Amino acid sequence: MADDRPPRGFPAAEFESRLARAQALMDAQGLDALLLTTEPDIRWFTGFLTQFWLSPTRPWFLVVPATGKPVAVIPGIGSEAMGRTWIEDIRTWSSPHPGDDGLTLLADALREAAGEGGAVGLQMGPETHLRMPLRDLERLRAALPGLSWEDASGVMRRLRQVKSKAEIAKIAEACRIACDAFDRLPEIAGAGMTEVEVFRAFKIACLQAGADDVDYLVGGAGPGGYGDIISPPSERRLQAGDVLILDVGLVFDGYYCDFDRNFSVGPPSDPVKRAYEAVWLATEAGLAAARAGVTCADLFRAMNAVTAPLADPSAGGAVGRLGHGLGMVLTEFPSIADWDDTVLEPGYVMTLEPGMATAPGKMMVHEENVAITQEAPRLLTRRADREIPVLSTS
Amino acid sequence: MADDRPPRGFPAAEFESRLARAQALMDAQGLDALLLTTEPDIRWFTGFLTQFWLSPTRPWFLVVPATGKPVAVIPGIGSEAMGRTWIEDIRTWSSPHPGDDGLTLLADALREAAGEGGAVGLQMGPETHLRMPLRDLERLRAALPGLSWEDASGVMRRLRQVKSKAEIAKIAEACRIACDAFDRLPEIAGAGMTEVEVFRAFKIACLQAGADDVDYLVGGAGPGGYGDIISPPSERRLQAGDVLILDVGLVFDGYYCDFDRNFSVGPPSDPVKRAYEAVWLATEAGLAAARAGVTCADLFRAMNAVTAPLADPSAGGAVGRLGHGLGMVLTEFPSIADWDDTVLEPGYVMTLEPGMATAPGKMMVHEENVAITQEAPRLLTRRADREIPVLSTS
Repeated sequence: MADDRPPRGFPAAEFESRLARAQALMDAQGLDALLLTTEPDIRWFTGFLTQFWLSPTRPWFLVVPATGKPVAVIPGIGSEAMGRTWIEDIRTWSSPHPGDDGLTLLADALREAAGEGGAVGLQMGPETHLRMPLRDLERLRAALPGLSWEDASGVMRRLRQVKSKAEIAKIAEACRIACDAFDRLPEIAGAGMTEVEVFRAFKIACLQAGADDVDYLVGGAGPGGYGDIISPPSERRLQAGDVLILDVGLVFDGYYCDFDRNFSVGPPSDPVKRAYEAVWLATEAGLAAARAGVTCADLFRAMNAVTAPLADPSAGGAVGRLGHGLGMVLTEFPSIADWDDTVLEPGYVMTLEPGMATAPGKMMVHEENVAITQEAPRLLTRRADREIPVLSTS
Repeated sequence: MADDRPPRGFPAAEFESRLARAQALMDAQGLDALLLTTEPDIRWFTGFLTQFWLSPTRPWFLVVPATGKPVAVIPGIGSEAMGRTWIEDIRTWSSPHPGDDGLTLLADALREAAGEGGAVGLQMGPETHLRMPLRDLERLRAALPGLSWEDASGVMRRLRQVKSKAEIAKIAEACRIACDAFDRLPEIAGAGMTEVEVFRAFKIACLQAGADDVDYLVGGAGPGGYGDIISPPSERRLQAGDVLILDVGLVFDGYYCDFDRNFSVGPPSDPVKRAYEAVWLATEAGLAAARAGVTCADLFRAMNAVTAPLADPSAGGAVGRLGHGLGMVLTEFPSIADWDDTVLEPGYVMTLEPGMATAPGKMMVHEENVAITQEAPRLLTRRADREIPVLSTS
């Protein structure tokens, strides 16, 4: 591990600054409290980091008032870990509880923050969900008849889209670790290995390079290209002429990278070389276009202009989005898509992910991660080679 | 890897049998359709397995009608992978879509299944959540004014609680892999290593032993015991006298194990020996009591009777639950708790997880995984040694 890796956690000043930003946006929307229920939202305000969220059994709540620090309303099993964060007001119950899984405590905290007739912000918009039982939301609303419930999706989106320097350093570290692991792929993978074996070897390489976890690894391989990049690995063995893609989201201190690399098993064919160069050049166009003040739609068009003329028209299918935000979650707002008019700002971290159909059922996708600035973006990944790297067939 | 590992996936007959069970329960409750939105529920009916669910961007829907096969309403990016399952009716849209993220397609599918005035089952109860934006649920209900929306939590709970032989084989394989990795701990971990280093070495050992992923690893170490078992590892170095616990949920073909092992760094003190033996004996009591016809509350009392007299009364705090269901998710219904009257049935897979406070801020927890039968439970983990294993201090 390099000695210059970023420290774990954040200083309290970072959370104070996040809270101040949040309360300014809440004030602008007239919200007396925010109610948060999901892992990334609660972690963004508190620093509370645990894999325990994998268990769907217990609800966890955070109430952000218009003034003062957030109030954690959480299962007792989390009290010691939450007690080590900067949060002071921690209210717990023995969860799971068949009759009242935190609702009374939560209603009290919301009443304190919003009074009898205030406005509570809850996320209701795209890419959000409520992590509590629907029946409990109905009971909560019934217990607080004077409150109004507003959509706070826009508040949380704006807050989390702009990353701090400390957050970008963690994403950059995740990218560095994955790049180091990808550099080792030619020594650990080649023809004759199954996809399952290649995925396992790569995950081990990521851990050895310093990953905390390799939460996300998808990809595939096939002759001259691949058709599906969201499936688990198969028992099919790599063979000469295959193109292999690995798309990795590994984690350092709660922050993701998300990018892919392509490999040719043995020397690439000319069509493979051309398709690889097309998506590599589209990424160059994205790197040239991505900066503060540009819209996501502009960035989409800059990359799509390179690949669209080269894609196989017989392969059909609409081009999806060509990238997205990245941070505490593998995919975040905004989308690099022709319908997304979000204006990029300094501190956004984005994937640039051009792709194209090369034949029916075959595609080529490429991906880098960048932080947006007023000038050229800061590349967080080490730029992929312009020529597709080759894995051994012997 | 052993040659007798279970095959990946399930035969179509298994999904047909699951669907028949589901439709019988739907009929009993008068449901014309089930609407499912989460990864495990959709995978239970379809076999659709992908890590792509880590991205919160896109909603995925499955409609289970009262007769006939389920209808998948999913983002286009999943069509190839869903097309390889036994599902035939797959309806896709280009997602994310800012105006209509699948709602029109979903409303059509629900109308076909439930008519203009039917009943749609949605999970609203404990341990569930809806994985779609709240605003979209409101729009969906408004688009289908004649339908009634019923709580189908009980249906899904009863379906998923009873595991098939093929499912139990996958959980058993996950347990075997983790046991093999735990057996190697004395050779890969000892005094002087940080918790971060121990966790990383153990994750690599799990992958080497055949894990697909090590989604969940929590634990901790401290002199004579630990106080918190849900936190990430620290940079603190193991030292003589520490007790280390690792609690692992690794995955084989989409199924979890979930159990822990304790280790003493150097020879254990007498109090550590006694606390370890207490939770080991409580697990024996659980193994003796766990069988079909017994309630979860009975099982709780059998284990708690061993540990309660030995726990430190000054440590305070309520005993939480002493185990839970296990399968496609790390923690599932039911809970081994004094308030849970669920009657165990053959095919339930449970964790037995007795624990006790040994001093203020210190505890000892032990855990095994079992499949419930009419007779003695089938132990899926290899039983932990009666004496705490020792890690090297040199």
